[in-house]
Amino acid sequence: MKQLSFFSGPSVLGILGGGQLGKMLLQAALPWDIQTHVLDPDTEAPCKHVCHYFETGSLMDYNTVYQFGKTCNVLTIEIEHVNTKALKQLQTEGVIVHPNPDALAIIQDKGKQKIFFKHLGIPTSDFGLYQHAEHVKDTLAQGLIRFPFVQKTRTAGYDGKGVCIIHSENDLSKLLDGPCLVEDYVPLQGELAVMVARNEQGEVVCYDPVWMDFHADANLLDLLVFPAPVSPQIAAQAEQYARVIIEAFNISGVLAVEFLLDHNGQLFVNEVAPRPHNSGHQTIESAVTSQYQQHLRGIFNLPLGSTKVITPSVMVNLLGAEGHIGDVVYEGLIPCLEKSGIHIHLYGKKTTKPFRKMGHVTVTNPNIEQAKQTAQWVKQTIRVESRK
Amino acid sequence: MKQLSFFSGPSVLGILGGGQLGKMLLQAALPWDIQTHVLDPDTEAPCKHVCHYFETGSLMDYNTVYQFGKTCNVLTIEIEHVNTKALKQLQTEGVIVHPNPDALAIIQDKGKQKIFFKHLGIPTSDFGLYQHAEHVKDTLAQGLIRFPFVQKTRTAGYDGKGVCIIHSENDLSKLLDGPCLVEDYVPLQGELAVMVARNEQGEVVCYDPVWMDFHADANLLDLLVFPAPVSPQIAAQAEQYARVIIEAFNISGVLAVEFLLDHNGQLFVNEVAPRPHNSGHQTIESAVTSQYQQHLRGIFNLPLGSTKVITPSVMVNLLGAEGHIGDVVYEGLIPCLEKSGIHIHLYGKKTTKPFRKMGHVTVTNPNIEQAKQTAQWVKQTIRVESRK
Repeated sequence: MKQLSFFSGPSVLGILGGGQLGKMLLQAALPWDIQTHVLDPDTEAPCKHVCHYFETGSLMDYNTVYQFGKTCNVLTIEIEHVNTKALKQLQTEGVIVHPNPDALAIIQDKGKQKIFFKHLGIPTSDFGLYQHAEHVKDTLAQGLIRFPFVQKTRTAGYDGKGVCIIHSENDLSKLLDGPCLVEDYVPLQGELAVMVARNEQGEVVCYDPVWMDFHADANLLDLLVFPAPVSPQIAAQAEQYARVIIEAFNISGVLAVEFLLDHNGQLFVNEVAPRPHNSGHQTIESAVTSQYQQHLRGIFNLPLGSTKVITPSVMVNLLGAEGHIGDVVYEGLIPCLEKSGIHIHLYGKKTTKPFRKMGHVTVTNPNIEQAKQTAQWVKQTIRVESRK
Repeated sequence: MKQLSFFSGPSVLGILGGGQLGKMLLQAALPWDIQTHVLDPDTEAPCKHVCHYFETGSLMDYNTVYQFGKTCNVLTIEIEHVNTKALKQLQTEGVIVHPNPDALAIIQDKGKQKIFFKHLGIPTSDFGLYQHAEHVKDTLAQGLIRFPFVQKTRTAGYDGKGVCIIHSENDLSKLLDGPCLVEDYVPLQGELAVMVARNEQGEVVCYDPVWMDFHADANLLDLLVFPAPVSPQIAAQAEQYARVIIEAFNISGVLAVEFLLDHNGQLFVNEVAPRPHNSGHQTIESAVTSQYQQHLRGIFNLPLGSTKVITPSVMVNLLGAEGHIGDVVYEGLIPCLEKSGIHIHLYGKKTTKPFRKMGHVTVTNPNIEQAKQTAQWVKQTIRVESRK
C-alpha cells in the first residue's frame, strides 16, 4: 500500500460503526484530508455529516458489510460487533482490514478472550463457560461456583450491559440468559486501562495507564484520571501485559486493555477493545498524539506518534439524566465555558435516554486534585435532559 | 438568542466561504455538535464534506447570499469578499450577522480601512487614494509621491495579490489598475499580527502577538513564530491597538490585526481581517483556546476562552511547488510523522498550483529556536506537487 495515497488522495478509509468513536476518528482524519466512508444502522448516527459517504445498514449482515467494504482501501471499526466473515473475505480480496478479523472474532466472544489470555499466561480472574442461566445454577448447586461471582454474556455486551454481579441467592433472578462466562469476583482496589498501539511494521507504543471510577447504578465509567495514580511498578506491569497482548493478537491500530487491580496490587486483565475507546478520550487534549490519530497511524502503517502527556486530566462522561427521554438539551454548559481547561465534546445524538453516553468533558490541569474537583463540579453542572 | 440552541440544537450556523478557514471553523464546531451550512462558489471546496448542508453559489451575489442566509440563525464569514447589502438585509430580518456588515464594508475596502485607522488615531503609514494607475503616475510626476512606495488595490486583494512595491521608475510597469491606495514604504524590522476576540457583551481577549516572515517571491507568509520575540512593551502596544480597533468596529468574533514594525520599534497597523486568519492557525495546538473555537464563542455571545500559550510554536504554510499544476500529492510527509510535535494540516484542495496555500504545519516546542529549525526542515521536506 502506498500510504501517501490517503493524504488528499484517492484511497478510501472505511469505518464500520458511526457512533461517537467513529465521529472522533473522523475528526482526527480531517486535518489529513482522508476520504472516509461510514456504515451504521442508525440513519442519524453521529458520523453522518462528517464523512464523504454515509451508508445506513446492518454491521452484522454479511452482504451489507461486504458490499460496503468493497468501496474501501482500508477498513476499520469503531465497534466490535460486526460481521467478521465479511471482513475475512474482503481481506482475501485485497482490502486492508484492521484490526485483523481473526483477532476480532476472538475479542467479540468474551469466553474466547479469556481463553486467549489464559494461554498467553496473562493473569485474568478464574472463569468457566456456560450454555445458559440454568447451566450456571446447576453448577452452583453442585458447589462448583461460589458467591460472589460475575456473570457476563459471551457476545454483544457493551457499556455495562451483559454483565451482572451475583452476591448471593437473592441475586440469582438477575442471571442473564444465553451463552455466558462466570468469573471470580475480584475485590477491587480499582480499575485501570492502558491504550497500546501498533503498526504493520511491528512498532508498538503505549500510553500511561488511566484510572477508572465506575457509576454504581449504571456500571458506566464515572470519572477517569490520567495518568493513573499508581506506582511505577504497576504502570510498567500493565504496559508490559498490553504489549504482549497486542503482539499476540497481531493487531494494527489501537487496543484498549482494561485491568482489575486487587488489594494486593495484583493486576488481572479484564477485557480488551481493538479500537479507540472511552478510556482514551482524554488523549485528545492531554497527550501529544490522540488515540484517534494514533489509530490512523497504526492502520495506515505510518510511524506511531508520541504518547507523552501534555497536561494531566480527568474525564467525565455526559450521561442522559434519569427521567429524560427525547430530543436532547444540554443545560449548564455556559458556566463550564467560563472556566479554563474544560473541554466539552457532544456526540451529536439527537435523542437522550437515561445513562446514554451523550458526550464527555475532559478537564486538563497540571494539578490532578484540582482537575478532579473541577470534573466533579462539571458532572453536577451539566445536565443532559430532554427538551420540554 | 438562546445560545444553548446551537449545542445539539435546532439553530443553524451559516458560513460564507468554504475554504480552509471555514473547514477549520467546522472542525471546531464538531465537538459542540453545531448544525452548519456553508456557501462557496467552488463545488469542491474544502468544507463540502464537513458540514450539514453545502451550497454552491456566488458570495458576491445579493440573492444567493440572501437566500442562503435565510436558512441560518447566525451567519459568519471566512472571507471578506461577500455581499454586505444582503447581510444588512438579513440583519434587519433577525439573522445574527458577525462580523457586523458595516464594519465588513469598511474592511473590504483598504482605502476606507486606512481612513478608519487614521480617524481612530492608530498609527498607520501615510497614504493617498487614487482612481487608477495613470492617476498614480500623474501624481508621481507632480512630485507628490516618492519612491519607494506600496500600491494596493482597494478591494479583492488577498494572499499577497493586489499589492506591489514600487522601488523606482523601472517598477512602474508593475502598477495595478483600478481604484487603489498608495502608501509610504516602511523599512521593516518585521511584521506582527495580533488576534483579538470579542463577544456581544463586550468581553475582549487577546492572544500574544505572532511574528511573521514573508516569502520573498510570492509575498506569502513563510514562517510564523508564536509568541513573537518582541519586547513586552511592543507586545502590549500591539494588544492595546487591537483592542481599540475591535471596539471601534463593534465586531463580535475574532479579528486579526496585522502590524508593520519599523527599525525604531514603532508599530503601524497594516490591515485587519474580521475572521479566523492564517496568522492564527498555530492556536489550534499552541493555545488553550484555538482561534476557531474563540470565533464561535464570540459570534454566539458565549464566555470567551483562555488565550494562554500551552507550548510555543512555529507555523509554516504548505504552498504548491513551482512547476506543478494538477491533482495534488504531498511528498515527504512520512519523515515529518516520525518526529514529535509536528502537526500536519492539509486543506483538502484537490488541485495544486504554484504558491497556492494547500496546508500548513505547526511545530510545537518549548524551545522556540528548535521549533524554528524543525519548521525550516519541514518546509524543505514536504513538497506539494502534482500527481504524475
